[in-house]
Amino acid sequence: MPAAGAPTTAVMAKYSFLDDYSEGAHPDVLAALFRSNGTQEVGYGRDTFSEEAKHHIRTHLGDHSVGVFFVPSGTSANAISIAACLRPHEAVVAASSGHIVTRETGAVEASGHKIINVVPDNGKLTVASISKALDDNWHFPHMARPRLVYISNATEVGTVYTKAELTAIKRLCEDNGLLLFVDGARIGCALTSSKNDLTLNDMLELTDIFWIGGTKNGALLGEAVVVKHPRLAEDFEFFVKQHGSLLAKGRVMGVQFAELFRDTLYFDLARQANRAAEKLSRAIVGAGFALRAETETNQVFAVLPVGLVKTLQQSFSFYVWEKHDDEWAVIRLLTTWATDPEQLERFSSIVLHWTK
Amino acid sequence: MPAAGAPTTAVMAKYSFLDDYSEGAHPDVLAALFRSNGTQEVGYGRDTFSEEAKHHIRTHLGDHSVGVFFVPSGTSANAISIAACLRPHEAVVAASSGHIVTRETGAVEASGHKIINVVPDNGKLTVASISKALDDNWHFPHMARPRLVYISNATEVGTVYTKAELTAIKRLCEDNGLLLFVDGARIGCALTSSKNDLTLNDMLELTDIFWIGGTKNGALLGEAVVVKHPRLAEDFEFFVKQHGSLLAKGRVMGVQFAELFRDTLYFDLARQANRAAEKLSRAIVGAGFALRAETETNQVFAVLPVGLVKTLQQSFSFYVWEKHDDEWAVIRLLTTWATDPEQLERFSSIVLHWTK
Amino acid sequence: MPAAGAPTTAVMAKYSFLDDYSEGAHPDVLAALFRSNGTQEVGYGRDTFSEEAKHHIRTHLGDHSVGVFFVPSGTSANAISIAACLRPHEAVVAASSGHIVTRETGAVEASGHKIINVVPDNGKLTVASISKALDDNWHFPHMARPRLVYISNATEVGTVYTKAELTAIKRLCEDNGLLLFVDGARIGCALTSSKNDLTLNDMLELTDIFWIGGTKNGALLGEAVVVKHPRLAEDFEFFVKQHGSLLAKGRVMGVQFAELFRDTLYFDLARQANRAAEKLSRAIVGAGFALRAETETNQVFAVLPVGLVKTLQQSFSFYVWEKHDDEWAVIRLLTTWATDPEQLERFSSIVLHWTK
Amino acid sequence: MPAAGAPTTAVMAKYSFLDDYSEGAHPDVLAALFRSNGTQEVGYGRDTFSEEAKHHIRTHLGDHSVGVFFVPSGTSANAISIAACLRPHEAVVAASSGHIVTRETGAVEASGHKIINVVPDNGKLTVASISKALDDNWHFPHMARPRLVYISNATEVGTVYTKAELTAIKRLCEDNGLLLFVDGARIGCALTSSKNDLTLNDMLELTDIFWIGGTKNGALLGEAVVVKHPRLAEDFEFFVKQHGSLLAKGRVMGVQFAELFRDTLYFDLARQANRAAEKLSRAIVGAGFALRAETETNQVFAVLPVGLVKTLQQSFSFYVWEKHDDEWAVIRLLTTWATDPEQLERFSSIVLHWTK
Repeated sequence: MPAAGAPTTAVMAKYSFLDDYSEGAHPDVLAALFRSNGTQEVGYGRDTFSEEAKHHIRTHLGDHSVGVFFVPSGTSANAISIAACLRPHEAVVAASSGHIVTRETGAVEASGHKIINVVPDNGKLTVASISKALDDNWHFPHMARPRLVYISNATEVGTVYTKAELTAIKRLCEDNGLLLFVDGARIGCALTSSKNDLTLNDMLELTDIFWIGGTKNGALLGEAVVVKHPRLAEDFEFFVKQHGSLLAKGRVMGVQFAELFRDTLYFDLARQANRAAEKLSRAIVGAGFALRAETETNQVFAVLPVGLVKTLQQSFSFYVWEKHDDEWAVIRLLTTWATDPEQLERFSSIVLHWTK
Repeated sequence: MPAAGAPTTAVMAKYSFLDDYSEGAHPDVLAALFRSNGTQEVGYGRDTFSEEAKHHIRTHLGDHSVGVFFVPSGTSANAISIAACLRPHEAVVAASSGHIVTRETGAVEASGHKIINVVPDNGKLTVASISKALDDNWHFPHMARPRLVYISNATEVGTVYTKAELTAIKRLCEDNGLLLFVDGARIGCALTSSKNDLTLNDMLELTDIFWIGGTKNGALLGEAVVVKHPRLAEDFEFFVKQHGSLLAKGRVMGVQFAELFRDTLYFDLARQANRAAEKLSRAIVGAGFALRAETETNQVFAVLPVGLVKTLQQSFSFYVWEKHDDEWAVIRLLTTWATDPEQLERFSSIVLHWTK
Repeated sequence: MPAAGAPTTAVMAKYSFLDDYSEGAHPDVLAALFRSNGTQEVGYGRDTFSEEAKHHIRTHLGDHSVGVFFVPSGTSANAISIAACLRPHEAVVAASSGHIVTRETGAVEASGHKIINVVPDNGKLTVASISKALDDNWHFPHMARPRLVYISNATEVGTVYTKAELTAIKRLCEDNGLLLFVDGARIGCALTSSKNDLTLNDMLELTDIFWIGGTKNGALLGEAVVVKHPRLAEDFEFFVKQHGSLLAKGRVMGVQFAELFRDTLYFDLARQANRAAEKLSRAIVGAGFALRAETETNQVFAVLPVGLVKTLQQSFSFYVWEKHDDEWAVIRLLTTWATDPEQLERFSSIVLHWTK
Repeated sequence: MPAAGAPTTAVMAKYSFLDDYSEGAHPDVLAALFRSNGTQEVGYGRDTFSEEAKHHIRTHLGDHSVGVFFVPSGTSANAISIAACLRPHEAVVAASSGHIVTRETGAVEASGHKIINVVPDNGKLTVASISKALDDNWHFPHMARPRLVYISNATEVGTVYTKAELTAIKRLCEDNGLLLFVDGARIGCALTSSKNDLTLNDMLELTDIFWIGGTKNGALLGEAVVVKHPRLAEDFEFFVKQHGSLLAKGRVMGVQFAELFRDTLYFDLARQANRAAEKLSRAIVGAGFALRAETETNQVFAVLPVGLVKTLQQSFSFYVWEKHDDEWAVIRLLTTWATDPEQLERFSSIVLHWTK
């Protein structure tokens, strides 16, 4: 978690590595919105663009029977999915670093569900940590029943799950009557990571419900929730509507996802973000500084001298993640498809040439 | 309420008078999105476009101290506003025809609040009907305490509140410790109606909280909630976030509302929608048919022979609102800024020349 | 609904026909509490007395497989049952006079569910009125899905359902995928009414879930919820606990229900209450006054001259239900197993001898 | 947390040290129920016994203006109090060992609120641990706002807060706009502990809301919630009712609390429970075994050889709290006012004479 306060508008005078939602849409996505604007469409997600987008996503998934639903934000994707999956006495198992625990204003609890916190291992849940949560939550009916495991891929600290890890978690879930739900705000970066061995189809096979983040990977807004079980999919739209996330002009998300998934744009953009992060990481290491953790996706955690951090802050905005000590600090840098190569170069150059 | 089922995609082969969200954004709004796309902006509504939009809306309101918050849909605007205003044991008074009662999948109840249903008078609440609701709900603590009155302007059947009516309701609310909340999904059409004598500033003066609908009047998505009381405004963003409605790229709504309220585009578009409805109404009356109610905004309720309805359905889509009898039916026609004058002409011509 | 305010403590100086919970427990029930007090018992409803009570209730029901759960109040019985039966997007169909609509402070809505209000017919729902509610609530996913029908037997105005009526409603429910839930706060009086042709076993057969009220029929507190479906019964205790209704000393309810259902005490007490109401009704009619409705259970609605009402109020407390006009008023009188025959006699005598 | 499963009915053939709610009411309390049974009383907590009980409790508190409300269970006391204090975006800070975290089936989350978990120190929160929770939860509006601190006195592991500790926490709360809420399920044992230096009046002074547990200290059921702020007290009954906890025959709790607080019975019973625990502790230590922690109230945690534990289990039921290793186990023993001195003697004797 950042040790510094939230940025203000003024920060943006500097080039920003703060997050992956600072820019608008990818130009192709925006152009599609432009082209499609004039026609009349049925409302509330029954438009032809949403249908087309669903078709393309299902083709990428290799399964044309799954439910696909568009919602405007990651918090809505998480809260709606969890509300749709659980009965009131059922609980979520999640890492204490999970987005639903730390960054969603208690949205899951607001729909009535307890989150059982688990200590993360490099941002991830493991068979061991989930098993411990189950061992600690058995005293029924005095405890809420663990029913759904929530993980993020990529995680909140940029790490990715391997196929072996995800398979093991899924098996544990099945053995214990748990659903597995994946927050895919950054699933593009996860699946195009050099560390990744999962496909989009694997995500479908190895989970019960997951979502594909648009906002952080080329869209203006929108996340696509993929719902495997027919019965859950059948009622899912009620939840989208009840949570205020069924847009009258559903086309605004349909058009964007159709563009992202018609071919491979979604993955191309994510790969671009990852490469920018790799480049940044190499520059930092090349200049003789350490990363706090290996860069797996579009998040770089660098350990830099406090003096260098201050110098960089004059031209760039980013989060100071934590202070190591008086001399060193960990900073977090996020890259995207829109990261400006010149700015990246300029950043790297300052790091390389820095002397106390 | 429509007596017929929901339209399917195929319906759109015909020209649609079904609703006011069939098209995309107004071209100027879309162009603004295009122009603004490249810059980096702070996320979650702290971007310069959202600030600009708030500035313009506050200028139109004549008050630069009020809170303004953008949310993606009408259901989110209603559910969030009501959740932010009420404590758990407090109830909403609403017309049984109100959108929160009939079209939001119990979103208000999902956040825990009872809605006390009142029989509407031409779509509207009155001092008499609200008073009766208060008289019927006094047995505390066995009954939820009425605390907020919800009205829509324009109403769900297209009627508008006069200044006298709204003033009387506001006075009743103040005398009884009630908040007054206005759903403004179609507030543009209301304030530009020929029946209207309210200004946007009056809306602020005579309510505690209300919203300005973008989705149905030129935007791709987005509604602007206006929150008068500083203390409520101070915490309002927590509710927006908790309900999944705080978009990471808040700019997508900021840009659109900045364009709509920079000058008078918002009102120009609404006036255009109203004029199209007037034109349609005149054509229907001119052809010798009756309206079920005088047309006040962009909704036309026409009583037509069943045969004519069938003929019209071959070229146009619209809701059959109710069957009068075997010979006559009431249909609902909605117009917008995007209503095609030629299609309107064609529709009118069929009505004019129809013979059994 | 009573036209007068809630009674204050002082009211009790007069003999009360206000309600059926003014006295403590029936002496046999209290004696059982006394006898059982010393032993050690497992907590939270696993005690031997609760087991015994369940056994006796199941014997009366003619089915030893159903779930039986004790909760402390009628509001908890209703809120818990409904929360356990419904998913978040599902709604309840209830009479606008139903206890959950008018007297439970929005407890059903507080657990997230919409109640679709239906105009009652003599306090009851009918196949016609339920069908209309279904016809009005079809526009999915924009409307909450009707999923459970709530009725009370006896109703809030003292009427009872016949076997034919209940059978017809059950059939309608089955045809439409609806659960049928019966609030049995006064089920004792219903099943011992002279108008009744239902057995306790019929209640089980013809509903999905219902409860047997103890508070208003001999117990100090406690209602027994009967849950037919094994899967619902399996999880039901989670809901009882989550709603704060799983008493650590569950024995306090177990002992009382064991006493009430060991033999026929529960029904004997209810019959006694009904007889007192009949006696009162006959006295009123015999004195030349009318009942607003025939007395079916332990509620008497009498139309009396305002002067007589005032005279009676000097010695008795009861609700003035409504004013007919300046001369006549409707009063409500409730009787119980504890109604004092002498007081009943005194009341009757005043009515008989009253002259303007 | 116990490592063994929940006891079954059969367990009770043995003498139980499992909990402090195995017996019925204290004989004096039961006698009061008996004496009071016949009179007619106004319902829903407006009865003369509840008024009397409130008067006595307020006298003990030294403040006759505070709100006092009776509810049937600890879970309802906690859930109702928290629901009444918080707005939807506000969170609770609690120890991860807190009853609301571990034993109430997510009842707090079910009313919409997040619980921020804090690592306990000997069962207690400290200024340091609460401060850390505040430091970790500042990123508004993305995080729920910490608003209420929940502590238990005695804690779930039997420890008590000193006046200095409670004062420091209260000051921290005031400095940070937090309410302080104390779960007093075992407040009797806390305030009569040899470690205690707090009075009941201190509890009122140093908290915003707290409750006095009846169930675990002489009553059949019932907890008394003490609400300091007049505005909160004014609406509190709505919450009691909405949560299904406003008993029609409120007298059942009023009579018991009147008896417990007329003089000093409540504290006498708690002192008796503490003394039994001290006696048990001395016997264990005297036999050469260790306590895992010093005994402060009515909970004894003893480290005993596994063989001795097995021997004891033949005659007594209690929780095996954790296994130290293959040779030693920690057991938990609870005492109450009803603990049988002969059984305590028998238990002590087995411990004293045990040889491998």
